[in-house]
Amino acid sequence: MSRKEEYKEEYKDYWWGENAQFYPGQQSIIKLSTPRVLIRYELEDVLEANFKEFFDSIEEIHWLDGNDLEDTQKETILKEAWDFLIIEEHLLEQDLLEMDDNDDDDEE
Amino acid sequence: MSRKEEYKEEYKDYWWGENAQFYPGQQSIIKLSTPRVLIRYELEDVLEANFKEFFDSIEEIHWLDGNDLEDTQKETILKEAWDFLIIEEHLLEQDLLEMDDNDDDDEE
Repeated sequence: MSRKEEYKEEYKDYWWGENAQFYPGQQSIIKLSTPRVLIRYELEDVLEANFKEFFDSIEEIHWLDGNDLEDTQKETILKEAWDFLIIEEHLLEQDLLEMDDNDDDDEE
Repeated sequence: MSRKEEYKEEYKDYWWGENAQFYPGQQSIIKLSTPRVLIRYELEDVLEANFKEFFDSIEEIHWLDGNDLEDTQKETILKEAWDFLIIEEHLLEQDLLEMDDNDDDDEE
C-alpha cells in the first residue's frame, strides 16, 4: 500500500508539536489556519499505524475558533492532519538515518 | 551561569513545533493561550545560544489574535517562549542520551 505523500499548500499552516514538560510521551498537530485546531495524541510510531489507530490515540481535540463545525468538515481536517503527520515522520526518519550514518563515519 | 528551569503553569499552552515540509531547518514555538502567537526561527542549538541569538534567529512572529499589544507584553511573551524552549531542548537532549545508551546496550 502506498500512501499519498504530497506537499499540499494547506500543510504550510500545520505544525507538529511537543510539550514534554506537561505532556510527556504525547505529541500534537496544530493547524493555524481557520478553522484552527489542536490535536493531542499518544501515538508513538506513526509510520506503523493507520488512521484508526491514530484516531483512537487522540487525547484532546481543541477547536480553537469554536466547535461549530460540520462533522464532515472535522473529519476532513483530521485526515489532512494525519496526512501531514505521515510526511513529517518520514522526513524525521530520513534525518535520523542520516545522523546515524554520520555517527558511524565518526567512529574510529 | 545557571538558567532557571521551572515548569510554569503558563508553559502548558506552549508547543515546540516543526514543519519540515515547508520550513526545513526551522522550528517554531506556538503559544495557544491568549494572546496567541507563532514564533518561527532558525536556531539550530538552543542550549548553546542566548536570548539575543534566539531573537536574531527569528524569521516570523505572528500574533494570531492581532498585533495590538504593548511592546513590554510582547517582550515578556518572547522571553517566556525562550524559557519554555530551553526546558524542552534539555528534555530532548536527555531523551537522546538515553536512546544512545540503549543503542550501546543493544550492540554486540
